[in-house]
Amino acid sequence: MTSYDVAQLGGLDTWLQAGDRPGKQFVDKLIPTQYIGVSANATAPGDQSPFWHSHDRIEEVYVFLGGVGQMGLDDEVVDVQPGTVVRVGQGVMRILRALPDSPEDLRWMCIRAGGDTLENVGHDGALDRERPAPWAE
Amino acid sequence: MTSYDVAQLGGLDTWLQAGDRPGKQFVDKLIPTQYIGVSANATAPGDQSPFWHSHDRIEEVYVFLGGVGQMGLDDEVVDVQPGTVVRVGQGVMRILRALPDSPEDLRWMCIRAGGDTLENVGHDGALDRERPAPWAE
Repeated sequence: MTSYDVAQLGGLDTWLQAGDRPGKQFVDKLIPTQYIGVSANATAPGDQSPFWHSHDRIEEVYVFLGGVGQMGLDDEVVDVQPGTVVRVGQGVMRILRALPDSPEDLRWMCIRAGGDTLENVGHDGALDRERPAPWAE
Repeated sequence: MTSYDVAQLGGLDTWLQAGDRPGKQFVDKLIPTQYIGVSANATAPGDQSPFWHSHDRIEEVYVFLGGVGQMGLDDEVVDVQPGTVVRVGQGVMRILRALPDSPEDLRWMCIRAGGDTLENVGHDGALDRERPAPWAE
C-alpha cells in the first residue's frame, strides 16, 4: 500500500456533529492506513467518555486542540487545555471529560499505534533539496 | 515504558513561533514515545516546506487544522483546508505550502509510524464500564 489517500474531517467547529458516532471520526475508517490510527473527537462541555479503557499493546497520544477538560489516568487527574499532549502507555486506564464551564467543546485527537518502535525503524527519510515546488513559476 | 507523559504545545495560534525550529514542535522530542511520532506545525501564508521528502518505511498522516494550502505528492497537487487529512505511503515525495492568501497560518499535524500494522496488533483494548469518573460526586 503506497501512494496517498485524502479524507475530509471538517473544521474543528464541526467535529461534535460529525461521524457515525457523533463526536468521533476515525480517520483509519475513512481511508486505509498501515500503522497509524487517528480519531478526531469533540466532547461537549460537561460531557465525558462513556467508559475508561486501556490497551495491552497500543500506545496512544492525545492532542487537545480546543476547550478545557480533564483526563483520568489510573488514579491521577490531569488538566488539559489547547496544546496539551498526553502520551498513555500500556495498561493505563483512561477517561476524559470537558469541564462544564469549558468555553467551547473539547476538541482532541487520539493517535494510536502498536508496532515496532520508531527507534528500530530508524532514519529512513530521503530528501530532495533541489526539486522545485509544484507551484513554483 | 508504561505510565503516561504530558507535554504542552500551546494553542494553535502560537504554533508558528513555537519550537526549536520555529513552526515545528516534535511531540516525540518533548516526551518519550514508543511507536508514535507527532509534530505540531505552522506555516505562514506564502511559505512552504524547505524541501520535499519521502520515507522508505514510515507511513505519515497529515491532519490540517487551520488555514488553506496545498500538498505536492509526487506529480500531483492536493488542496488542503481545515479538516483535510492526507495519508502518505512509502516512497511518495511530498512538500506543502500555505497559500499566499490563506486567511491564517496553515496549522497542521504530521503523524508518523513505521512498525507492525494495526491489523496485526488486533483488538487489544480493555473497557471498564462500571468505574466512575474521578470527578464524579
